[in-house]
Parts: sequence; structure tokens; C-alpha cells
Amino acid sequence: MVNPKIVLQHLDELRALTSDEQGAQRVAWSPIWLKARAWFEEKLKPLPVEHHYDAVGNHWITLAGESEKALVLGSHLDSVPNGGWLDGSLGVMAGLEVLTNLAKEHNGRPPCTVRLVDWADEEGARFGRSLFGSSAFAGTHTIEADRVRTDRDGIALEAALRNCGIDVNRIGESSREQKNIAAYLELHIEQGPILEKLGKPLAVVQGTKGVERWTVTFHGQEAHSGSTPMEVRRDALAAAARLALEIRPIARRHSQSVTTMGSVKTFPGIVTAVVGRCEATLDMRDLDANILAGMLREARDASERFAKEERCSVEWSKIWSIEPIPFHPELINLCEEAVVETAGASEQLPSGPLHDAAEVARIGIPTVMMFVQSLNGLSHNRAEDTKREHIEQAVIALNRLAQKTIDWIQQ
Amino acid sequence: MVNPKIVLQHLDELRALTSDEQGAQRVAWSPIWLKARAWFEEKLKPLPVEHHYDAVGNHWITLAGESEKALVLGSHLDSVPNGGWLDGSLGVMAGLEVLTNLAKEHNGRPPCTVRLVDWADEEGARFGRSLFGSSAFAGTHTIEADRVRTDRDGIALEAALRNCGIDVNRIGESSREQKNIAAYLELHIEQGPILEKLGKPLAVVQGTKGVERWTVTFHGQEAHSGSTPMEVRRDALAAAARLALEIRPIARRHSQSVTTMGSVKTFPGIVTAVVGRCEATLDMRDLDANILAGMLREARDASERFAKEERCSVEWSKIWSIEPIPFHPELINLCEEAVVETAGASEQLPSGPLHDAAEVARIGIPTVMMFVQSLNGLSHNRAEDTKREHIEQAVIALNRLAQKTIDWIQQ
Repeated sequence: MVNPKIVLQHLDELRALTSDEQGAQRVAWSPIWLKARAWFEEKLKPLPVEHHYDAVGNHWITLAGESEKALVLGSHLDSVPNGGWLDGSLGVMAGLEVLTNLAKEHNGRPPCTVRLVDWADEEGARFGRSLFGSSAFAGTHTIEADRVRTDRDGIALEAALRNCGIDVNRIGESSREQKNIAAYLELHIEQGPILEKLGKPLAVVQGTKGVERWTVTFHGQEAHSGSTPMEVRRDALAAAARLALEIRPIARRHSQSVTTMGSVKTFPGIVTAVVGRCEATLDMRDLDANILAGMLREARDASERFAKEERCSVEWSKIWSIEPIPFHPELINLCEEAVVETAGASEQLPSGPLHDAAEVARIGIPTVMMFVQSLNGLSHNRAEDTKREHIEQAVIALNRLAQKTIDWIQQ
Repeated sequence: MVNPKIVLQHLDELRALTSDEQGAQRVAWSPIWLKARAWFEEKLKPLPVEHHYDAVGNHWITLAGESEKALVLGSHLDSVPNGGWLDGSLGVMAGLEVLTNLAKEHNGRPPCTVRLVDWADEEGARFGRSLFGSSAFAGTHTIEADRVRTDRDGIALEAALRNCGIDVNRIGESSREQKNIAAYLELHIEQGPILEKLGKPLAVVQGTKGVERWTVTFHGQEAHSGSTPMEVRRDALAAAARLALEIRPIARRHSQSVTTMGSVKTFPGIVTAVVGRCEATLDMRDLDANILAGMLREARDASERFAKEERCSVEWSKIWSIEPIPFHPELINLCEEAVVETAGASEQLPSGPLHDAAEVARIGIPTVMMFVQSLNGLSHNRAEDTKREHIEQAVIALNRLAQKTIDWIQQ
């Protein structure tokens, strides 16, 4: 029998060890993160497992089974600065308990191999590159773009990783770990308000939404706020303000789409001048690639219309994008069963935030994620929380899902 | 006869002496500004005048007349960094030529005293406090609020002024110069596009608009751009965007009002987060105090409505305000005559930008300003320009106005 109380104990221990009054401080490549990983290694000692760090610093724990085919449970121990106690850690601790239980129930040798992975630097908090370890594993990451990254103290990514024993020229070798992986499961907090609103503890994740991230810059004409009549102004902020409002109906035409203008910068940005240039960021997400492409097109068209009407010009510059990554339909069904058997009811949601599971799924490994309810939709700060009974249900459901997935791999 | 070509010669000389390829660099309290003032002193040598700097650094040139009652012509030699060749300098150079002409026509002793003042630090470019010299003269300035001001190299205002021989504790003594002043005239470029659009070279300025300057801060809820559904968001940027658009119809209800949102700052201001806090600046101007108060009320009401509808809160914090300052009705009439006699047609405009004339007028000294057309409405940069024939007309009209004002003082 899986023991969810152990998971809560471990999470409390880890929080005490790696948080201060501002929250969790397990930023990847930092001493506190290394301390969390050392603490975690101690927990492995009683288990009949092999463990090692791969070329990018992902930590792999392997319980060998009758078959070489492997079920992998994964998540990450790193956090953002001033982070929460559950984001990432919950998945690792629940995975450890499920693996411990499978070892026990199968006398140390389950029908297939079971592995647990603690991905390196999921958050990208220090160098701005999230999913670092899992993308190296998936082979979707090239170090070339990241060589120039530095943290805010000016320390280069390459130097910081060298201090942790990682040679950035060899991180691609992490993809060797792909061998024999038959399925990947990840438990995570929702980080949104939907399950709490529905009164449901658990959900099946359908996939991760595609993301389009752009900088939209409107160019008008800087002018004196006192001497320039309203009718001759070419106000770049006015055009941006219209776009800020227009992206909302664009999103609302689709039930699960989100669009966000997260940053606006005004130039010269002084109280006495009409804004000559306005830089805004746009983040659009949907699980359906066609819907996402349509929203992007609508936003571009609207921006051009507003620019024209305000006698400004507009340019779009891509920050980053990723296609929607749907999870495996059969694993989605197994997850649905596990959730219903545990909690009586389920819900299917796309994930707005990205997760390491997206990197695993995009290279064709059958993948599914499970969400557990978040309180107040908060994460990435110390107020992040989930009811303890929901955490216990999540561990039980993940264990059920693991057992079902082992059976599915054996088919 | 006044000689407007001398004014153009002086302006060209001053430009050559104090500009680089980025424009004029006569920032108050800088070596280049001091160089401009030393150059200007040389121009006074042939004239039968006394001149001195007062306690705040305003430069007073006095041509004693039959009566102690004084007509004052004024403007400023300081510029913004990368400024234009006319803003401020035109008024000083035209004043010098008018004073020279009056000395000549009256054999060195006009019916009343005529003075020229070069105000210190009109622009406030270095320390952020405009109308520095004229407000000390008017007694509306207290140094207490400015003691903490520093420039961007961290040099304190107090230290910079001490280097120019000014003791900030004594600047109030500048008000002694008010004695016997019977009228004040100032010629300035329009800095806006109205006269060019009307095809008129000159205008009479009715007064300076009142200004209300506020910071408006909307508080919403920072949230994850991926996991937060549109309908639960409390987006502070959305509320600010609605206000940015609403201030335009508020201004347009009145023919000469202007409203500007010049700066928007978003927090946390990252592509992946809904804006939790948005700080915007508002600048509203009108010549009519009741209209200005009404616009401010309408903007506040609108901001509160938008905050409520977006489930945000809003707070207003005053940056600065000044009441509208109407110029003297009889001097407005004299200016109208002088402009019509010179250019055939006139126009009456309020001034959106502030000028030293506002400080003089607010203590009850009869005051009027004259505007000369600007090209493309541009100022505060090196593209600032005015047709040379318009500058000549302006000098002739200012001379006419000075003569009319001397007669008016003598009544």
C-alpha cells in the first residue's frame, strides 16, 4: 500500500530545509538546490535502486524490472526564488513513494522497469531558460543559444553549470536516457483556479497548450503634452491600449484560450510627452494549433487596424513559440480511471503552463499528467498551497495510474 | 528702427558656440550655459545699461528711463540637452534688439525704464524643477522641496548652484527685483502646430493653461498567464488601457483641452504574468479652471468605474498642479494690435507649455506673451525650427508691442 502521509512528511521536511520566510529558495544550480538534492539522495538509501546524474544534471533513479521497458515518473526539485512548497517537489516526492511501494509490492522487481527522474532546472529562474534538463533529454535544446546567458550577477550559464559538474558541450548526451522508456507520468499542482471552482480535487491533463509570445511595438510621434492638440497626435499608447482590450474578446471566442499583455513600456515615458513608441508583450495560448494560429492572426490584424486609425505603425517581433502538445489518448483514459476511482469524479483540462512532460511527449513517448487542485490559483510564491487531503488523494491516484500504466506497457 | 537681421545673426552665433550635432547644449548650471551667458555679456558692452545677476542667477539688464516704472522683456538662454536653437534664446535676442533700439530712439533715456531679464534655469532639465529662476523671483518657490534634488550623476542641486556662485538659502532675495515693474513681455516659439496649420506667423497668447498632473495606480492581481482563465482575471493593465482611451473624449468635449497619458509601467511586467499593478501618469490642461476641474473629475470617475468593472482598485496621487494664468486683458489688446500691424492677421491662443511669464503674471504684474510659428510643431530637439522671415516679423512686432506698452505704462 502506498503511504501518502510519507509524502506530506517529506514535503514538510524539504520545506523546512530549503525555505526562508520568503518561500522556497531551491533555484537550480544554487547551493540550496544542491542541498535539496543531497537530502533527496539520503531518501534513496533504503531502496533497491541504481541512481545517477546524466550529462545535463537530470537525476535518474532506476528500479530494474522483469522487462527493460520502463515506466518513468518525473518532476523537479528546483523552484523559483521565493517559491512554493509544492511546485515540482510534490511530483518528485509522490513519485518516490509510488516507486517505493512498487518495489515493496513486487519484492524489488516489478514486471517492467520503473524509473523516477528529477529534472534539472525546470523553472529557468536564474538564466531565463525553462525546461532546461528535459529539453536536453529530448534533444530539442541546443546550447548555442544559451551560451551568452548570464544571471543577474553577470555569471555565465556555462560557468555556473561547470560549478555543478556539468559540461555544457555535452548536455546532448542526456538523450541516451530515452532508451526503453515506454511511458511517462507527472503529477503537478494545477497552478490555476479551475478545480477549486469546480470543487474537484484531481484532473487529467489533456496536453500542454501551444504558446505564441511576441513583442508588439507601436511607433507614433513623441510630442509636447501641452502644445499638441488632440486631433494631430499620433499616440502610440492609444494604439497599444486598444490592442490590450481587443485581445480579450479574441480569447473569449474560444472556451480555453488565454491572451495576456503582460508588459507595456512607454517612450519617452514622461508625464509631459505624448508616447512616441510603445512596446507591449503578447502571450497567447490554446490547446488547438488552428485556434492558436487564428488568434494570432486576429491580433495582428487588429494591431494593424489600430495602428492605421491612430496614424502609427506597428511591428511584431517573435519572442518564442511552441506548438500545442497533446498527451497520449490511452494514458489519458487510464488517468481518468485512476482519478475517478480515487476521487469519485474527474475533470479534463489542458495545461496553460508548460511542464517537463511537454518535452517528453513531443518526442513521441506516451505521456500524461495529473493535476491536483491549487488553492486560490496561486503558485510561484509562498502563498502556493493545496489541501493536505487532496495531496493524499493525488498520491493514491498516481499510484493507481502507475499500476495501470505498467499493465498497459506489458500488453 | 529695429533691425531683425541682427537677431538672426546673434541666434546663429549662439548656435555655433553652444550646440553640437545633437543640438543645443545650454543646460542650466553647465559650463556651456555659462559660456552662453559670458558671450551674451559681451553683446551688452556698447549699450548704456547696468547689468547684474540676482540671488538666484537671473540676469537683469537695465536701461534707466525718465520714470522708475519699468517695462521688462524676458526669456531664457538655457536649453534642454539636445535642444533647439530658438526655445528661450529667441526671446532674449529679440529683447536685446528691442532694448538696443529703444536706447537709440530715445537717446539712451526712454520715458520709462526698460529691462531685459535672462531667467535662470527655465527648463529644469538637470534637476527636474522648471521655472527655477522666475519662481524664485515670484516668491512661489521654496528651496526646501528642492534640497534633495540631484542630477543623474548624483550631484546635488545645492552643490551645482554653489559652483555657479548661487547660495540656495538666499534665492528668495531675487524677489527684490519685482520693484517698480509695470509690465512684462515675452516672445516665444509656439512649440505646437496650430499657427503653421492656420498659415499665420504670429499669435497673441491669452495665458498659460492650468495643469493637473497625477499618478494613477490600478491594483489588480498578478496571475499566471497560462493557467488563469480570462473570466477570473483582475487585470490592472486592462483598467489603465480603458482610462488611456477615455481621457481622449474627455478632452475633446472642450476645444482647447489636452489630456495625456505619457507613462505606463506594468508590474511584474513580464510576458508570462497578468499585470497585477499598473502605474500611469496623467497630464490635463486647460485655460479655464472650471473646465480643468471638470475634466479631472470626469477622469477620476471613469477610473473608478473601470477599476470596479475590472475588479481592481485605483488610487490617485498628485504630482503637481498649477492654476490657469490668464494674461492681462489690456496687454492682450496691445499685442493684438502689434501683431495685426506687422503680419496683417492675428490669432489668440492659450499656451499649453508653461513659461516664465506665468510666474510673473501670477504675482499680478501685467503680462502678455507673443508666439511665433513653429515648423512641424517640434521643439526640445534639434529639428526645432521657424522660418527666418517669421522670426524677423516677430522682432518687429515685439518692438511695436514694447513701444505701445511704454505708452500704456505712461498713461
